[in-house]
Amino acid sequence: MGPRPVEDLITAFSRLPGIGRKTAQRLTFYIVKRPREEADALARALLGAKDDIHNCVQCFNLTETGEDLCAVCRNASRDQRQICVVEDPGVVLFLEANQLMRGVYHVLGGVLSPLDGVGPGELRLDALVARVQQHDVTEVIVALNASAEGDATAEYLARLLTPLTRVTRLARGLPVGADLDLADKVTLTHALEGRHSL
Amino acid sequence: MGPRPVEDLITAFSRLPGIGRKTAQRLTFYIVKRPREEADALARALLGAKDDIHNCVQCFNLTETGEDLCAVCRNASRDQRQICVVEDPGVVLFLEANQLMRGVYHVLGGVLSPLDGVGPGELRLDALVARVQQHDVTEVIVALNASAEGDATAEYLARLLTPLTRVTRLARGLPVGADLDLADKVTLTHALEGRHSL
Repeated sequence: MGPRPVEDLITAFSRLPGIGRKTAQRLTFYIVKRPREEADALARALLGAKDDIHNCVQCFNLTETGEDLCAVCRNASRDQRQICVVEDPGVVLFLEANQLMRGVYHVLGGVLSPLDGVGPGELRLDALVARVQQHDVTEVIVALNASAEGDATAEYLARLLTPLTRVTRLARGLPVGADLDLADKVTLTHALEGRHSL
Repeated sequence: MGPRPVEDLITAFSRLPGIGRKTAQRLTFYIVKRPREEADALARALLGAKDDIHNCVQCFNLTETGEDLCAVCRNASRDQRQICVVEDPGVVLFLEANQLMRGVYHVLGGVLSPLDGVGPGELRLDALVARVQQHDVTEVIVALNASAEGDATAEYLARLLTPLTRVTRLARGLPVGADLDLADKVTLTHALEGRHSL
């Protein structure tokens, strides 16, 4: 329909998650309208995010070139004895944005998923066990998705680490603002099981 | 919060229209997770859309390097005597996607907006008048936004071109599926004025 380079950009945008063809068209025409510097800035940022970052040597969170440790691990005021286990660095960014954690992180690099060929060997479990042992860790908080894979991984972690330290998991229940009668049965079951005295 | 290259990409994504910080984070972590080739493909497409396209010499729609005329103007089956006037090339892409036009286009490059310093001299009006005269044009369809600027530009075009050809404008009224009692007063006024016999 449009000229080939325009169609190519629409196609490239629509490969991104959550970007449909309509949105990709809108983004493309924005790029076409605006000065070349803006397209160039986004292009350079894209490559920078691939080339100028690597994993923290301690927790596998992302860190920039020139830094072995990520910003969280470098921060002396963070409690190195409380480790929050997450699936990928995106979760770290999300939790840090909400400023809820006073400890540090450990990025597993995935969750157990036999159907996708992800077994314990694919996750950064040895490094986690080593950290728990070396740093006298008092609590490992498992912050994985409330999915079947997340559940299986959490149980695996609990078996692996309970001999070494306390292992906890984020609570399940009704999200804030949710209507009780719209909750699914599993959520409701968790909410009931987790009930507490007022 | 995150490493600098990651924050830079989040910032670059969130400069795009309709992309908030949450979406920009999601897109950034997708890029970080995926192979470098995907980031590179998007980066190249971004620059290609700036460097490998230019305006059609006839209608100012976008066309690729090596083609003076755009795909619509090159298409011999299109009626060169019916010109649809649009604000920017994005509208051409949208109309072409819906396959509603049998004529050709003329991209004004904007709409009259005295507050933004856009007067008739900033729009491609001379080229439009010349096309109308040279190609024995039978109808100019004004397809501009239903905004104050679109209205003012449509009226200017009508005054300019009515001595030369027939000038029409897209109908106003209730969009398909709209509830009558949710329509604003201006839309309702247009719908009433444009009523027709059944």
